[in-house]
Parts: sequence; structure tokens; C-alpha cells
Amino acid sequence: MSDQISPLAPARFPDLPAIAGLEAAIGRAGFYKHARPDLLLMRMPAGTKAAGVFTTNAVGSAPTDWCKQALSATRGNARGLLVNAGCANSFTGPAGDAACKRALTEAGAAIGVETREMLAASTGVIGVLLDDAKITNALLHMKQAPVSWPEAAAAIMTTDTFPKGAGATCEIDGVTVNIAGIAKGSGMIAPNMATMLAFVFTDAALSAPILKTLLKAETETSFNSITVDGDRSTNDCVLLFATGQARVPPIADARDDRLAAFRQALSDVLRDLAIQIVRDGEGATKLVKVVVEGAASDASAKIIARTICESPLVKTAIAGEDANWGRIVMAVGRADQPVKKDMIAVRFGDFYAARDGMVASTYDEAAMSAYMQRQELEITVTVGPGAGRAVMHTCDLTKRYVEINGDYRS
Amino acid sequence: MSDQISPLAPARFPDLPAIAGLEAAIGRAGFYKHARPDLLLMRMPAGTKAAGVFTTNAVGSAPTDWCKQALSATRGNARGLLVNAGCANSFTGPAGDAACKRALTEAGAAIGVETREMLAASTGVIGVLLDDAKITNALLHMKQAPVSWPEAAAAIMTTDTFPKGAGATCEIDGVTVNIAGIAKGSGMIAPNMATMLAFVFTDAALSAPILKTLLKAETETSFNSITVDGDRSTNDCVLLFATGQARVPPIADARDDRLAAFRQALSDVLRDLAIQIVRDGEGATKLVKVVVEGAASDASAKIIARTICESPLVKTAIAGEDANWGRIVMAVGRADQPVKKDMIAVRFGDFYAARDGMVASTYDEAAMSAYMQRQELEITVTVGPGAGRAVMHTCDLTKRYVEINGDYRS
Repeated sequence: MSDQISPLAPARFPDLPAIAGLEAAIGRAGFYKHARPDLLLMRMPAGTKAAGVFTTNAVGSAPTDWCKQALSATRGNARGLLVNAGCANSFTGPAGDAACKRALTEAGAAIGVETREMLAASTGVIGVLLDDAKITNALLHMKQAPVSWPEAAAAIMTTDTFPKGAGATCEIDGVTVNIAGIAKGSGMIAPNMATMLAFVFTDAALSAPILKTLLKAETETSFNSITVDGDRSTNDCVLLFATGQARVPPIADARDDRLAAFRQALSDVLRDLAIQIVRDGEGATKLVKVVVEGAASDASAKIIARTICESPLVKTAIAGEDANWGRIVMAVGRADQPVKKDMIAVRFGDFYAARDGMVASTYDEAAMSAYMQRQELEITVTVGPGAGRAVMHTCDLTKRYVEINGDYRS
Repeated sequence: MSDQISPLAPARFPDLPAIAGLEAAIGRAGFYKHARPDLLLMRMPAGTKAAGVFTTNAVGSAPTDWCKQALSATRGNARGLLVNAGCANSFTGPAGDAACKRALTEAGAAIGVETREMLAASTGVIGVLLDDAKITNALLHMKQAPVSWPEAAAAIMTTDTFPKGAGATCEIDGVTVNIAGIAKGSGMIAPNMATMLAFVFTDAALSAPILKTLLKAETETSFNSITVDGDRSTNDCVLLFATGQARVPPIADARDDRLAAFRQALSDVLRDLAIQIVRDGEGATKLVKVVVEGAASDASAKIIARTICESPLVKTAIAGEDANWGRIVMAVGRADQPVKKDMIAVRFGDFYAARDGMVASTYDEAAMSAYMQRQELEITVTVGPGAGRAVMHTCDLTKRYVEINGDYRS
């Protein structure tokens, strides 16, 4: 947690809908030297279904390994979630797995949930074994209560400068249902996935397979379409819980039309949380939306967009408010994707820098420079005649990023 | 060119052997506001053979396009080289191609070489059309003379803080031959290839196909094994010229044993130049050698090494002299290569941080912290039981990098 709040932070934490049956407790295990909550324990009512999407980092972590196994063993039944900040419990071998399980057993006992129905998420320094005794001690002082979303979101923060939440209300077949989510993340953020945790809750009664299908699809255009520094953590996870308190008619297929509004609302919530993570990118002063059009396929467009978004030269130019479009062209070229050089165009907002493979005839340095001073930028890049398109969000690379990350452990 | 010389710069420019028959002229076309040479024109004797390796960036540039076509059309016959700094002449369409050709025609006329036997290299801002009239004017004041290597190396610099040269003398079948090379590069440096230009000359009488085979092979472990920022330019090229003044017996095959010493000497020169480029990495304060062992293949090891070397979190930790080995483990995990988690080990110099998939029992934070204060670091990472191995050089990511690149064009 930093003293300086990101200049890109939203004005305030949003009002999120209550999710019936959900309880939470905040605590302090003491994984940080300074006095701040670092523990969140949530309790879901009986019948809650859950699904998760996890980091593709090959090293992984004890909590993500646990969640994958537990969700599979229980077929998506989960009633408890324990999250700690300050220790990732990644790369800690069998001892880390045992510590994770002990912490979950203690936390489950405290809220009357069996260990097998508990899920875990950890974030913090990699390679440090989770000291679960600290969690056991903290549990003595934690009391379940209706969820305070801002407090829950604050308890899972690490280098985040503001708590992140998003919510929506929609209908499934005439029944009103609610969605509320919180997330954390600011560095080690890359597609598939960021160093981020996100927990999203709905009261809709939906099956675990449907939750999983929807979560996977909507993660692709939200959390998998942001990048801060290209680094992808060992602990990333997005969990979606459905408490089932809003009794919607049984739906068997994720493609059912009656889910359209819910799907859109879920997508909005995930994307809102994802963009908030970019807004809290370490040292960020600019939020940048990169749109790549005309690629051979959507997948190809996404690779090009990611290459632009992760280019240190592009990111530092944006930090310097320099419309250095040549570096964007360089990044397009180094993405190793099929592009048509003579059709490449680069646009900052409405201002063309390049068109048809060279500097635009309407090139207006003054107008572009003025545009670059905005906090929120949109860069549109055409790479050829194809129909492939992708949108990715990133932020700039500043001295502050180097400062934050040069001295993280001490 | 910066006022501050990189702290990693060699103590002095090396003494390079003379290459018989070679001449050079230095000039100032005025691509920079400040008074400094930005033009190098070299003349090679009749019978010179040449080979090149060029950027794989899909956008490319007028000079690299020209060189590829010229080397192919003349089957490796080249007698002149024109290099300018300050304008990349990349992404400039047909007008850029025409400007490149006009500049070569004028330069060729000045030294009595046909345009088709001229090669070109440009480095500088992307997207700006080469103003060849500036070159034509400068040519009037340039006089060919025996090569002064330090001056030639300085004339091709952009953001470089010191001129780069390397040389060697060896024997081919009892005949003494010399190699001398110069290079430039400091930002936009990535494998395949860096924003770098390198020109290497030998007096050995070798055929163009042999030059090409040797250059390609030795580029892989030199210029293609360094990375500063992962960005790969539109203009990179390495050119190797053999003037043929040292009459060695005809050799038909690059694998001929009589070439062993030459091959090794060439490899040494290329690697020396490549590491000098990393030493001049923008804002660099640490030179880092990353060795990856135990991978499934050499290629897989190289991908992992590159992921470590390009991770902003690893690079900023090194800048902060923090032995944050967890980030190295994270980078190993996100390289998407086959690794054996339980065998992962990370060593800083001789100090093990991690071993057998978790923190090392001999972990000594004080010793590692002391080690991290060195200017030159070696990080060895074991990722599994395989025989795959790779070595890559990189530098740290500092605030100065952000500073240099946030304000490059202005």
C-alpha cells in the first residue's frame, strides 16, 4: 500500500449491491510491518456454487493449486474463502501446501465450513512460506458480519493505492439478480493473467458449469486484456461465486438466451475491475486503450496489441507525453504477426500520425502533443486489410514504477 | 549521445588492427541539432565480399531493404558503406527508398563506387524521411583516409554514451588475418536483433557464402543473445566485409577446419561488441549475465533466459540491488516452457537463493545483498533435468531509462 493514491483512481469506491447470505470478516495477521488489515474471510450460504480461472504461470502457488483441486473435487461447491495479502505462499514446496491447508482448516472451523469447501488466495512476496499461525491467531479476533465491500477490497491490497470494486444488477428470466466484485492488483500484471486477485459474487442460482463457462469467456476480454508490465504472477485468480439466494428458473446451458443480460452485466463488472487494476498500475499516470484493427485474426490482433502495450519504449514515450508513433510502428513490426506495411496507420484519438505506411499528410504535431497531455488516451492502429480486432488496456512506464519495484522487499 | 558516460563502459577504446585497403571518411550531415559527426562513409578495395544479418522486424527500413536486395543482386560484392545516425529512414514508403538510393549514388560517386555496390545503414528516429540533400552537402567536406576506428565508431552513435569497438588477429591455414569491428546501440535492444548496427571487417580472402554462414551462426550467440528492453528495431543490421588483402588459400566450405580459429575470433569480436551494447544499455548500472540450465532444449533455455532478462520486475529489482529471486522464479514460470518445479534453483554468483523448488537451506540474505552491489552479476537458474542451456546478457531497468526514453524526440 502506497501513501500516494494513483492519479488515475476513480473518485470514490462505488456502491455495490448486497449479495444475500454473504458474510465477511476482516483481520490482521501481521504479514506487513505497518498496521493494516491483510486478511479477509468470507462465508457463503449452503448451496453456493463456484468457478475459478487461474494463472497459467508454470510455477503456480499453494493456494491456486488448492483451489483447482478443491473446485474439481467438490464439483464447484464452495462455502468459504480465505484471502491473505503480504505472503504469496508460492514456490514453497510441500510445506507451503500443508500451511495453506492448515490455515483453511482453522478458518473453516471458525465459520463452520468444512476444509474441502474452503478456497484460498494469497498475494505478496514469492518464495516465503505462509506462517499460518499468524492467521490462526488473527481468526480469534475476527467476526463475521454483512459484507462491507470497501473494507473487504482494502484488506486484499498489496501495492494497490486504492480499493477496487464493481457491481451490477440485471434480470435473469424476469428475476432480479445482483453482482458484486472486488479485485486487487497493480504490478506484475499481464494477460493470462495479471498479479491479481478478483472475487465476484452473485445471488443468482446458477450451476457451477455455467459459472465456469461464463467466467472463462468473460475473463478473456477483461483480465486477460490488460497489461501493466508483462509480468504474470504465480498466484493470479478470479473466483466467481453464486449464492443461489435469487431463485432463477433452472438453466442448463451457458448459451441460453435468458442469460444474455447476466452475461453482459458480468462482463461489465469484470472489465470495470480489470481497468481499475490498470488505473492502479504501479507508477501509472496515463490510462491507455490500444485498439488494433485490420489484423489477420482477433488472436493476431491481440498479440500485436499486447506487444504495443508492453513495449518499454512505447510506454516511456507515453509517460513523457511524446506522441512517438515510430515506436508504435516498431512494436507492430516486432510482434511477428502478418501485417501489411503499406496499410499501417496510427491514430492518437482522432489525430492520424501515420497512414498508408508513412507519416500522415495531415500530421499535426501540436494537436497530437496536446492530446498526449490527457490522462486517458486511445491509440488506434490499423495493420492491414483483415477483420481481426483487439482492445487492450495498459498504462505508462514511469520513474515511479522503477522506484516502487526497485525496493519492494525492504 | 549523452553527457553521462555509462558506468559500465570499458576503460578505453581498444586498439584495433588495421585492415589493409580500407578507408573511411567522417562527416556531419546535421541530423542532430548539436555539433557532432553523424555520417560515416567507408570504401573497400575491389574484390571485397560482404554478408549481412538484418532485423526480423516486419516493418524494416529503406536501408535494410536496400542492403538485402543489393547483397542478393551482387552476390555479396560490396565496395562502399554509408552510415548515418539521427534518421532511421524507416516507415517512409517509396519516398524513403528513393532518398536512400540517391544518397548512395552521391556517396558512391564521391568514392568511385557504383551505386549497386554500395550498402547503407541508418539509425535514429523512425518515420522521418531521410533528407539526402544534407548528406550530399556533407560529402563535399569529407575526405577518405585510413580508418580511425574510434572516430568511425563515434560517428554512428545515437543515444550511445561511448564508442564501441573490438578486434582480433588469428591465422587461417598459416596466414595471419585481422578482424576489426565497430557497433552502436543502447536502447530498443532485443534478440533478433537489437537496435544496433555493427560493421565488421576482415582482410581475409573469404567468399560471400562463407561469410554469410559464419556471420549467421555467430550472431545467434552474440547479438541475438542480448536484450536491453525487449524492443527490436526496424533498422538493425550486422555487416561483415572481407577485403581479401590477406591471401588465404581458397576455402570452399564454412565448416572447413582451417576456419576454426577465424570462426572463434569472429565469435569473440561479435560477442565483445554485443556485450558493449548491453554495457551501454540506456540508464544501465548493472551488467547481468543470465545462465539457464537444465531446460528441455537450448532453444527452450533461451526463451526462459530472455523472459528473465526482459522482466521489468526482475530488472527493477536488480537496479535496486535487491536479490528478489521470487521474481526470477515468476519469470521462469511465465515463459511457458517445460520446467520441473521441484528442481528449480536460483543462484546469484555462488550464493543459492532457491534450490529444489524452494528457498535454499543455505539462504544467506546478507551475502546475496552484498553480491548484488557489484556492477557485474551472474544469475544461474536451473529449471529441470534437461541438457538445454543458454546464456543471455542484459542490464537493469533504472529511472534513467525512463528519463532518456520519455523525452527522446524533443
